Amino acid sequence: MIVVMRKKASDESVGRIVTKIQELGFQAHVSKGVERSIIGVIGGVDDKTKIENLANLSDVESVVPIMKKYKLASREFHPDDSVINIRGLKIGGDNFVVVAGPCSVESREQLLESAEIVKKYGAVFLRGGAFKPRTSPYSFQGLEELGLKILAEARETYGLPIVTEIMNPRDIDLVAEYTDVLQVGARNIQNFSLLKELGRVRKPILLKRGMMTTIEEWLMSAEYVMAGGNEEIVLCERGIRTFETASRNTLDLSAVPILKEKTHLPVIVDPSHAVGYWQFVSPLAKAAVAAGADGIMVEVHPRPEEALSDGGQSLKPERFDRMMQELKPFITAAGKRMVSLDEKSNA
Amino acid sequence: MIVVMRKKASDESVGRIVTKIQELGFQAHVSKGVERSIIGVIGGVDDKTKIENLANLSDVESVVPIMKKYKLASREFHPDDSVINIRGLKIGGDNFVVVAGPCSVESREQLLESAEIVKKYGAVFLRGGAFKPRTSPYSFQGLEELGLKILAEARETYGLPIVTEIMNPRDIDLVAEYTDVLQVGARNIQNFSLLKELGRVRKPILLKRGMMTTIEEWLMSAEYVMAGGNEEIVLCERGIRTFETASRNTLDLSAVPILKEKTHLPVIVDPSHAVGYWQFVSPLAKAAVAAGADGIMVEVHPRPEEALSDGGQSLKPERFDRMMQELKPFITAAGKRMVSLDEKSNA
Amino acid sequence: MIVVMRKKASDESVGRIVTKIQELGFQAHVSKGVERSIIGVIGGVDDKTKIENLANLSDVESVVPIMKKYKLASREFHPDDSVINIRGLKIGGDNFVVVAGPCSVESREQLLESAEIVKKYGAVFLRGGAFKPRTSPYSFQGLEELGLKILAEARETYGLPIVTEIMNPRDIDLVAEYTDVLQVGARNIQNFSLLKELGRVRKPILLKRGMMTTIEEWLMSAEYVMAGGNEEIVLCERGIRTFETASRNTLDLSAVPILKEKTHLPVIVDPSHAVGYWQFVSPLAKAAVAAGADGIMVEVHPRPEEALSDGGQSLKPERFDRMMQELKPFITAAGKRMVSLDEKSNA
Amino acid sequence: MIVVMRKKASDESVGRIVTKIQELGFQAHVSKGVERSIIGVIGGVDDKTKIENLANLSDVESVVPIMKKYKLASREFHPDDSVINIRGLKIGGDNFVVVAGPCSVESREQLLESAEIVKKYGAVFLRGGAFKPRTSPYSFQGLEELGLKILAEARETYGLPIVTEIMNPRDIDLVAEYTDVLQVGARNIQNFSLLKELGRVRKPILLKRGMMTTIEEWLMSAEYVMAGGNEEIVLCERGIRTFETASRNTLDLSAVPILKEKTHLPVIVDPSHAVGYWQFVSPLAKAAVAAGADGIMVEVHPRPEEALSDGGQSLKPERFDRMMQELKPFITAAGKRMVSLDEKSNA
Repeated sequence: MIVVMRKKASDESVGRIVTKIQELGFQAHVSKGVERSIIGVIGGVDDKTKIENLANLSDVESVVPIMKKYKLASREFHPDDSVINIRGLKIGGDNFVVVAGPCSVESREQLLESAEIVKKYGAVFLRGGAFKPRTSPYSFQGLEELGLKILAEARETYGLPIVTEIMNPRDIDLVAEYTDVLQVGARNIQNFSLLKELGRVRKPILLKRGMMTTIEEWLMSAEYVMAGGNEEIVLCERGIRTFETASRNTLDLSAVPILKEKTHLPVIVDPSHAVGYWQFVSPLAKAAVAAGADGIMVEVHPRPEEALSDGGQSLKPERFDRMMQELKPFITAAGKRMVSLDEKSNA
Repeated sequence: MIVVMRKKASDESVGRIVTKIQELGFQAHVSKGVERSIIGVIGGVDDKTKIENLANLSDVESVVPIMKKYKLASREFHPDDSVINIRGLKIGGDNFVVVAGPCSVESREQLLESAEIVKKYGAVFLRGGAFKPRTSPYSFQGLEELGLKILAEARETYGLPIVTEIMNPRDIDLVAEYTDVLQVGARNIQNFSLLKELGRVRKPILLKRGMMTTIEEWLMSAEYVMAGGNEEIVLCERGIRTFETASRNTLDLSAVPILKEKTHLPVIVDPSHAVGYWQFVSPLAKAAVAAGADGIMVEVHPRPEEALSDGGQSLKPERFDRMMQELKPFITAAGKRMVSLDEKSNA
Repeated sequence: MIVVMRKKASDESVGRIVTKIQELGFQAHVSKGVERSIIGVIGGVDDKTKIENLANLSDVESVVPIMKKYKLASREFHPDDSVINIRGLKIGGDNFVVVAGPCSVESREQLLESAEIVKKYGAVFLRGGAFKPRTSPYSFQGLEELGLKILAEARETYGLPIVTEIMNPRDIDLVAEYTDVLQVGARNIQNFSLLKELGRVRKPILLKRGMMTTIEEWLMSAEYVMAGGNEEIVLCERGIRTFETASRNTLDLSAVPILKEKTHLPVIVDPSHAVGYWQFVSPLAKAAVAAGADGIMVEVHPRPEEALSDGGQSLKPERFDRMMQELKPFITAAGKRMVSLDEKSNA
Repeated sequence: MIVVMRKKASDESVGRIVTKIQELGFQAHVSKGVERSIIGVIGGVDDKTKIENLANLSDVESVVPIMKKYKLASREFHPDDSVINIRGLKIGGDNFVVVAGPCSVESREQLLESAEIVKKYGAVFLRGGAFKPRTSPYSFQGLEELGLKILAEARETYGLPIVTEIMNPRDIDLVAEYTDVLQVGARNIQNFSLLKELGRVRKPILLKRGMMTTIEEWLMSAEYVMAGGNEEIVLCERGIRTFETASRNTLDLSAVPILKEKTHLPVIVDPSHAVGYWQFVSPLAKAAVAAGADGIMVEVHPRPEEALSDGGQSLKPERFDRMMQELKPFITAAGKRMVSLDEKSNA
């Protein structure tokens, strides 16, 4: 932390702040300038709140944070890429995974058909929501436990590990019983109660970025889960909210290389929710590969025009097929390898 | 909903979409223009998802929603202002309430001292967090049940009804037992699991706007609680996230008159969290009054420089006193009356 | 400036950066922490670009600016409020001014009628655009010189000084010949060529905030004009661009008290362009007063439904009348006085 | 346009609006719903302002625009990709161009050295600013005409066509005399006076997106230049302003496929200004290729740590070399070909 003194602050005033900093258990280093003094605050790595509060004292102009607040998630703490192994399928390192499926589990038929399609064209994880966070209480809210059972059946039939969303801490045991990966949606990225409880789950967490979450806050949310004891986190960029309305959200692909510098956790990209229109999903999936992502998550629906949610952004089967073909040379160019179901262990 | 056809769409193509709309149980009205046709979609008030999915069909350029999605929260449904009565203190209508207190309950002494101060200068509700949503898992997380007990003691001692935050659905019964108003924080505004469960609580809910939440989404979140059976909602504007960094968030006072047109629910304003620096709280509190707010919620701490959270935005006692004095002529000018504790019933 | 070193940076590496800083003509103060070192950079008040470039060197994690970049506009440089005198009417200090009129000068009749109305109900400046910045090249672009002549005629007839927009540096002499105040629109706030040339004009400049402009950048734009020799600047908050679509832009009233702390320049508020709908103009005008603004600028049109631009946000005459009546107690509560035309000098 | 009536609007009221629409020269098609009526407005392709103003009438809830406002820039008007030929080098279609060079022309030596480097590693256009838009009036403002002369010398020596910025309409003839492409910077994207005057220039315009400009507004700015007679426009995505601070701006790569659908104009990407840190430029350049861009513009400086502007985001020569090597397989995967100087004509 840096405490910046006001221009007019006297030496006495600076001294009073230094004493205060020392009383709080930190060390203070004063740099006296021609115009104003600044005080470097060292030590006390955990809770800097007390230093931030110094902004309330007279003659203090501002308090500037310098240090990162996350540790377990940081690359400094863990320099090598984390590779997460899910039933033999690896996420992270030089592996590239495709997660695909419909937005919601709508029926047994729809989900099994979706699973067959996404497997056929090369996806290795099946996505589908059983508990759906919908803006309106009057919209379809998901099939809940029935949806989980259908997902489990699809996994058994097609051999695809599944990814599904968890919303309520009360449902953690139920969802964890069925799924391979628990997804935290964008709207729950700072639902700290949920994150804390996920820290004690022994399954990987897919942590989607919030629409208004900075990269640092996102890593702090990962840190919540990790601090609770669960270090298997996959980050998923899915667009942030901006003024632009031509896309549903603004996919922030800069986040991929920035995260790669800051953290060891794998990073995948969901272009479907980000852009909101199916015709832009394929170019953005390729861009995600090129930016260095460890995988993509896309929406595929057998008949998008009949979907109960997010039909407008879902790929039809033949479009998903074409995208998967077109992705290959980009994955090679990026120095990665597409993970295939053959690698799946029978564990 | 309006379906806008592409420029080149043939009559046949328009006919196919009309048939599709009718099959989905809606009526279609075609307006054929020189350049392109548009189709008005009428009926089927609840789930419009299937119409939105038509954007996936060829020759459809876009699907434009027209109707509001909330009902119980809308002024059309309930033309008069809702007035919520909490132990005889009214929120809404021509009443103006001041909610004040520290960000967190830090200790029995700190809270009782805070309660005494805010009561002395005219606040009628005491705020204070027992469960704290903190960005970092390593920051102070609140005193939890002990904090609730301290709040209840302060209510008993000073007669101020209390407002405190609920984060985890598991804690609803516990928190509801102690508090008069349950606050949903900005980060949980689209925590639909929590909102649904709050629908069955029989105490008022203070619903803070999310940093990323549009006014329409915010009203949809109110609708979630109301659809569950709890219609006592107070909305609280607390700033949205923008590119500006001179304030912590950007207080959106336009939201006040806009909400007053769209909804019958009371609207209060939290300038402390919005702007993030104590010296700007008083002018923004006055501006909230002038914009038509039904109250304000401000942070007051006996010694802000020692606060465990948000000290930089907390008012010292004497500054809170001065603000309360200065607010009065603005409340009169706005045609409102400041609610005082004398109105409290002993119910 | 603060240079933050990477965690792993050796003492040698820190020493190399210190040498570099000294070579560039600055002083360096090292604070060595347990985890990493930070270097305070002192001196060389003007162009810090060379220090910012140090971010390019290995072992440097980031470079954090500390100092404000504006001087002439800062309150530190000029502690008292600037009061600008335009034909005897004062802006700044405890004066409150109302600028009103139509968005565009559409015809002689429309403007003279507008002038009569706004004068009747208490405005002291007449606004109206002769050169219009329109998003579409096919929209009405303004009456140009004819519009300026009509404005001048209205001033002569009704005695209201006029405010009109300047867009092209080539038109400065022409516009300055007719107008009392030159307005720089939101889209030209970082048109530095225009700002530089306005520095040599001897008439006040009304500088509207850009939709994308931080408060600091806005003050830097004021500094451009002031550095050129023209210190008569009035700042005008008019809303920033955010994700919210219920209002046209998001009026940032926090900017008013923040500017009052940072600068001595007068600050007025334009609620009409900010919110974009006439029915929200009056509550936001009151809020602007309460937040501490030195005046407001509002759109008034004799027949808004016939306006060639921005009709949806214009007040009808009777609504302007009512707003002016309602504003009075707020102006009094804010400790200001409404400036009236009686104060106009005949200079 | 669609006019949405309020819920309570009577048939008579709807009839009155229909008459009004017809009087304004448009046709009206009423769709009467159970809850409310909507009116489709057809005809009168150019200025819809008068219809927008209907929002001011009682019983009208809102007016919803449907049609695109740009024509010459639209793909509907010109279905094939525009390919712009600059001294034999093509931009658009299946061509991929690299524009590189320093932010500013700082000296003859610096620019000639830069030109040699960027040519050596495969760039085909040299960029460099002679007139610099700097946030501070006290920062280096560019070498102006001397800078233009140095750029021209570099073109003569190394055969690279040049791209340089135009800020002031007064300088158009001067800049056009020296440069091959005139760049309009992000801050001037809605400087309509400048855009209009560029319509009569006979050289291509590189139009950078503004930090807060929607894709539609950007295309309207292109339309300004095209409506003036100059149809040679290259669009350049350079990041938009969002709440995220880990990157300087947020590169919006979704804009690339969205633009490719809406317009025939070539689209290039500037990752350097967008992200603001050199280490993220290469991954984002690759992502731009994959998203379908027609080229990139990157900052390269012989010694970034000495740059007078934007040193932190400039690539060193060897990093530029490596990026150019790494880009090649992505360009192939995208079905494009890298344009080389061998294709340059001697015209």
